[in-house]
Parts: sequence; structure tokens; C-alpha cells
Amino acid sequence: MIDIKQLDAAAADFWPQLEKLLDWEGVSDEAVTNIVREILAAVKTHGDAAVIEYSQRFDRVKAKTMADLEISLERAKAALESIPHAQREALEAAAERVRIYHEHQKQDSWSYTEDDGTILGQQVMPLDRAGLYVPGGKAAYPSSVLMNAIPAKVAGVQELIMVVPTPDDEVNELVLAAAAVAGVDRIFAVGGAQAVAALAYGTETIPQVDKIVGPGNIFVATAKGMVFGTVGIDMIAGPSEILVICDGKTDPDWIAMDLFSQAEHDEDAQSILISPDAQFLEQVKASIERLLPTMERKDIITTSLTSRAALIHVENMDTAIDVANFIAAEHLELSVDDPMAMAKKIRHAGAIFLGRYTPEALGDYCAGPNHVLPTSRTARFSSPLGVYDFQKRSSLIQVSESGAQSLGKIASVLARGESLTAHARSAEYRLKDD
Amino acid sequence: MIDIKQLDAAAADFWPQLEKLLDWEGVSDEAVTNIVREILAAVKTHGDAAVIEYSQRFDRVKAKTMADLEISLERAKAALESIPHAQREALEAAAERVRIYHEHQKQDSWSYTEDDGTILGQQVMPLDRAGLYVPGGKAAYPSSVLMNAIPAKVAGVQELIMVVPTPDDEVNELVLAAAAVAGVDRIFAVGGAQAVAALAYGTETIPQVDKIVGPGNIFVATAKGMVFGTVGIDMIAGPSEILVICDGKTDPDWIAMDLFSQAEHDEDAQSILISPDAQFLEQVKASIERLLPTMERKDIITTSLTSRAALIHVENMDTAIDVANFIAAEHLELSVDDPMAMAKKIRHAGAIFLGRYTPEALGDYCAGPNHVLPTSRTARFSSPLGVYDFQKRSSLIQVSESGAQSLGKIASVLARGESLTAHARSAEYRLKDD
Repeated sequence: MIDIKQLDAAAADFWPQLEKLLDWEGVSDEAVTNIVREILAAVKTHGDAAVIEYSQRFDRVKAKTMADLEISLERAKAALESIPHAQREALEAAAERVRIYHEHQKQDSWSYTEDDGTILGQQVMPLDRAGLYVPGGKAAYPSSVLMNAIPAKVAGVQELIMVVPTPDDEVNELVLAAAAVAGVDRIFAVGGAQAVAALAYGTETIPQVDKIVGPGNIFVATAKGMVFGTVGIDMIAGPSEILVICDGKTDPDWIAMDLFSQAEHDEDAQSILISPDAQFLEQVKASIERLLPTMERKDIITTSLTSRAALIHVENMDTAIDVANFIAAEHLELSVDDPMAMAKKIRHAGAIFLGRYTPEALGDYCAGPNHVLPTSRTARFSSPLGVYDFQKRSSLIQVSESGAQSLGKIASVLARGESLTAHARSAEYRLKDD
Repeated sequence: MIDIKQLDAAAADFWPQLEKLLDWEGVSDEAVTNIVREILAAVKTHGDAAVIEYSQRFDRVKAKTMADLEISLERAKAALESIPHAQREALEAAAERVRIYHEHQKQDSWSYTEDDGTILGQQVMPLDRAGLYVPGGKAAYPSSVLMNAIPAKVAGVQELIMVVPTPDDEVNELVLAAAAVAGVDRIFAVGGAQAVAALAYGTETIPQVDKIVGPGNIFVATAKGMVFGTVGIDMIAGPSEILVICDGKTDPDWIAMDLFSQAEHDEDAQSILISPDAQFLEQVKASIERLLPTMERKDIITTSLTSRAALIHVENMDTAIDVANFIAAEHLELSVDDPMAMAKKIRHAGAIFLGRYTPEALGDYCAGPNHVLPTSRTARFSSPLGVYDFQKRSSLIQVSESGAQSLGKIASVLARGESLTAHARSAEYRLKDD
């Protein structure tokens, strides 16, 4: 019998119990911090030489020069041509859908002109150069390459540089193929904090980027946190989560598998199901029992479900929505009859999967929207990775001679109220003598 | 004679010199970090009691309860009615212009429907609740209250909570007046790291917010950095900067005063002038010499100009643009004949002030655009504070039964390629038997 937490939203201590269930503190290890600080400093000072040394030490690569560590685009294209045809087709179809969806996110410059000729607006520009971190080994997901790279290219980023560790010189063909499909511009076989440092500061060979995106282990996450400010970074993600709200009318096996699809990521992943139908919750539990032994990653799933999952009974759908808004889940499935009506009441979620035919897995790979989403309740204030993360704005202010007269007087009063008299006089210089 | 750096873009060592000029490292003090960590933990554990104790200790307030530390909206409105009429008019005029400008930034939900009935889009929602930190004492700027509060209210944030220290129970009437004008919902006379902690974790009296914005001293900045993740934060700003590009045809006194208006902020502020006209640079230098003794804040201005300012000679405007794009200045004035044509070549700047009648001061107070801008070259990847900082997006994915057939096959192939078989099976469940 698998032991999954069962909560009842009508219980007196439900909300504190829920808060405890969601509680997650990333480990901040002083040893990691010190190692990363040392690596960052070494790469900042010694550039390529440090990158090569760390890659030899940590990833046991044979490379002697940075040229050895650069993977050519030809090599990536060769990977794309070498993978099974079905995989290539799937990668290309997914990339095309992701591209079309993200085109909708592109923001344009705008401005308006006032009666006195004053022009106000914002100029929207892509970042010049972005860096994409791709984990090596087991956690290497070609789908993540698409999801991180395509928004950058749609935004118009001129140079997208991918870094990916190749421990023992082992290269992941699917990852290289995805890079070719996504339009990555340069690839370096470098990983860890040294890769983040190289992208943040630049070396003789690796150009400095303006923003670093992509998932990584604790060394990579710590390094990203430390270089933030020198470059932009995306969110530092916690464990992945799914919250399913079901009215009890979806096949319980489907829901069990949707919960598994989250739980199989890692032991800390969180799967939660909410239903007003107590019997349905029991049915899903039975499905879990029955299906679990058939799963390839059953050990990970079991640990994840027993330590972090929950089945929550609610009195009605209004309570389900309240709970969902509190959880602010990364992935929220609304497996109900009129999911769009319910979605309008959802204030916080990374991605909302509507209807019984929209399992999270479709969004993870190929529906079009991004799978890089805010975790750990940060959907209260964060958004999915998007084209907007690779664009930035400059305010445009062109005050006409006539506009300077009215604005100058207002600015002068306010600046003097703040004792900033150079500000006031700078505005007053533009006033004509009355 | 004031000693201002003069650089020539044609010099062999110009670019490294420029990089050195811009170099800025915020001090990260271990003592500060430890104090802030202690304050955060105390407020998290003891709530109101800790907030009151720290306010008594650090700000010497007489308050015994949180009720004593809440400033009513009636009190703020009274402040607005008590300030000089010209100041009230200026505040209200500025607020109205800022509001109109920011209305243009509001983003709407969007979606599209594919041929098979699949719906994809993004739902845009305001944050529920935001916190606004306002510094007390000398650095209390009513204009900053407007600039931080108005975008939140335009976004639709339901509850905007302002915190402002009142050392020795001294209240800044202009700041309260600005809060009334901007539509702040609640005000607490609390500052420092304890205010940030209260907003981030919530106390019995102060509600937890979703994002904290606004400038503060090193304790506030450190606290914001530490609570990031639990709540959202805005950028942590470095010293303010202005870069003026002038063709030599603007009154040199105007340009000198524009440089002063940045330098008067604090000793670390940076003012840079670029011109292809060497004689004009000399004229501005003469204006600086002549005007400096007349400035109220001449000591601050002198320190700022001698330690961080520069006059840069360039051969032509193309080089000026290259330098400007490298600097990625917070404020960029284009004091030239056709500033809009030049602006189109500017890839990186927080705000661009176009033409001889647009000194930075007008943008600081009342032109409409936000004065919270990316500093220290972060305009390469960051944007002005805006309505978009108080909105967030949820992806919408509603796959039709028919759509699930094609997408399910793609997802299945990709998921199996990543050895995520629960993902694959979750997608496959939605496939009809062929």
C-alpha cells in the first residue's frame, strides 16, 4: 500500500497543513557557495585557461584548447540527421508549434504624440546575446533546449550561445539535434559554474552574454544567483509540481498517470489532486496502486508520492479554486466539464491545462506554450519563460519646446520640494522668459 | 579648477579606460548580511512584536502597538490638503501624466484557436498585493512614491501597502501626500529590513505581499535580495547615471546643469558627456566651473564629478552611438538635431531623452515615463519599472480531443526519447485506438 497524504479542506487545520505540504526550502550550502565563488573568480581572471582546467577536472574531458571544446553547428546538424526519423520529425513538429505560439508574445515599440508635440513611448529591443545552459547526463532534455532557445530567437537575439557539459567527452545526440532545430548559434562543451562564469564575464573565446537561461544543478543555480546583476538570469526553479482539479468524471487511470508524469521527474517533485468527489479520490488511489508497479521509474515516483503528494477532498469547486489560488501551482490541470469558465477564476498558475484531453505532458513537449514555468508558489508574481524575457524596453521622451514650458514648471516645484535644485534649474533653463 | 576625466575615443586604450570608468561593485558586507538575516528570522517567527521592537530600537519610535504604527489614509489625505497649493497641483499633475503613460503598458490576455479546436494563449492577471518601500529622512522622494505606486494601481493590484520609516516619529508630509495622490491602500510607519521582512512573510497586522518594490539603503537592499523567491522584487539599483550626447549646438550651461542634476544625487552618481566637438567640451567645462559655486549641493556634485564623471571626445556620431550602447546608461540624453533618428540606433538605455528641450529632470518628475530605471549597464537586459512588473501570465492550453491525437503522438516520441515514460503514457492514454 502506497501511503499518500489525504487532506480534507473542511478540516479545522486544513490551511496550515496545506502550507506545510507546500513548504520548500532550497538548500544553501556554504561549501557550494565557496567553491562557486572560487570558480567565478578564476574564470573572470584567467578566462579560457580556467574554463579548460575546470572542464578537465570536473568533466574529465580530454580537450586541451577552447577550440577542442567548441562544438560546431555542422556537428549539431549531423546529429539531427543521425537520430531516428520519428524523433527528428517530432522535434521539428514541436519546434514549429513552439515557434508559432511564441510569435504571439513578441512586443513592439509604441509611442503617442501629445497636442503640444511631445512624444512619449517605449522602444522595444531584443537582447544582443543570450546564453543557454543545458545540463549534461541524465537530466539532458532536448525539449528544454527548444523551450529555452526558441523564445530567444523569436525575440531577435542575434547570438544564442549554448553551453552543455560533456562528462567523459560523452555528447548527447538528441540535445545537439534540438540545438540545430532551435537555431542555436554557437555551442561549447562546458558545464557547471565555469560555464556560467564564462557566459557572464566572457573569455577570450566565449563571448559575454546579456542573460543566462536554462536549468542546472546546485552549482549552476548558485553561480547564476551570484552573477545576477552582471547579466540577467531566468528564475531559479524549485522542484516541479502538478495540481489536478477533477470533477470525478475523468478516467481515474488518466489522472493517476498525470500525477505520475510529475512525480517521475525527481523525488522532490509534487503531485496534488483535488476533487469534490471522495469516491473518485479512492478510485485514483486504486489506479495508482495498480499502475505503479508497471512504471519504469517507480522508485522515484513512489518516493515523490509518499513524501510530497496529496489527495485533497473539497466540498465544492469554489473551494477547489481557493486552494488552487493558494498553491499557485506550476502546472494546473482542470479536468472538468467547463474548464475555460474555471480558468477565469484562477489568479495564479504557471500554466493551465484545460479539459480532459490536455494532460500536462502535451504542454511539456509540443502544444506550443513554454514548459519553463514558475515553481514553489512564485506564479503569484512570475510568468512562464517567454519572448518578453529576451526583449527589453527603453523609455522614449521627446518634450517639445512648448511642452517644456508646462512640464518645466511642474518639475521645478517638485524638485525644489525634494531639495534637488540642480534638477529644478535644469528644467527652468528650458523655460522661456514670460 | 575641478578635475574631470577627459577621454578620447580615438585613443588606443579608450575601451579599457571606459570599462574602468563604469566599473561599480556594490559592497556586500558580511556584518550587514548577518544583521539582516537575524532581523528576517525574528520577524518571520515573532511577527508584529519583532517589528515593533526593531522600530523602537532603530527608529526610536514611541509606538507600543502595530496600531500605533499604521498611518491612516485620512492622515495621508490631511497631508495632501496641508501642503502648499503649488506642490499639491504639481503632484496631481505629475500623477495624472504618469497614470496616462502607464495605461499604455497594460497587457491583455490573448488566445488563438487552431483548426482542430485546440485553444492556446496566455491569461494576464495583476498581482494580488504589492509592497512599496519608501525611504525615510533625506532620501524620501515623493516622486518615487508616484513612480512606484501608480504602475501597480494601473495594473490592477488590489492592495498596495506602503512602508516608510519615521525616525523619531518624524513624518514626511510630502511623501504622505504623494501616497494619497497615488492611491496607496495602507501605510505603515516601519522601515529597514524589518519592513521588508514584514511584507515578505506577513505578520498579524501587515499582510504578506507578492512583490516588494522601491529603493532603500544597504539593509533594505540586502533584505530584498534575501526574500527574493518568497516574494518578487524589483531591481536592486546601483548609483544613478546620466550620459549626454551633444552635437555642440546646445547651450553649454544647459548641459552642465543636466550633468549636475545627476551628480547632485550622491557622491557615487555618474555624469558623462560625449561630443564630437572638442571646443564644446571645453565650453561645458567652463560652464561647470562657473556654475558649480552657485549650487546648493556643490560638495556632493564636486565629489561625484571628480571621482566618476567624464567628458569624452569622439570623432563622429557613429562612435558616440557605439559608446552609448556599451555604457547602456540609465538616462541617455540625445541633445542633437534629429534625436529620433539617433534613438533608433540606441540598443541599450533605461530612458532616452530626445532633443534639447528634454532634460532628464522632466522625466524624473512629470513627463509620464517611469523614473525607476536599470542602472550599471543592466539596461542591456532590464527595462524601466512598469505596469508589466505588476502583471503576470499563465499559459492557457486547451487541447481538443482531435488535437490530442496528433500532439499525443509527438509528445510520446519525445518523452520516450527522454526516458520519461509516465509522460509518454499520460499522452498515449488520450489517443483513440486506430
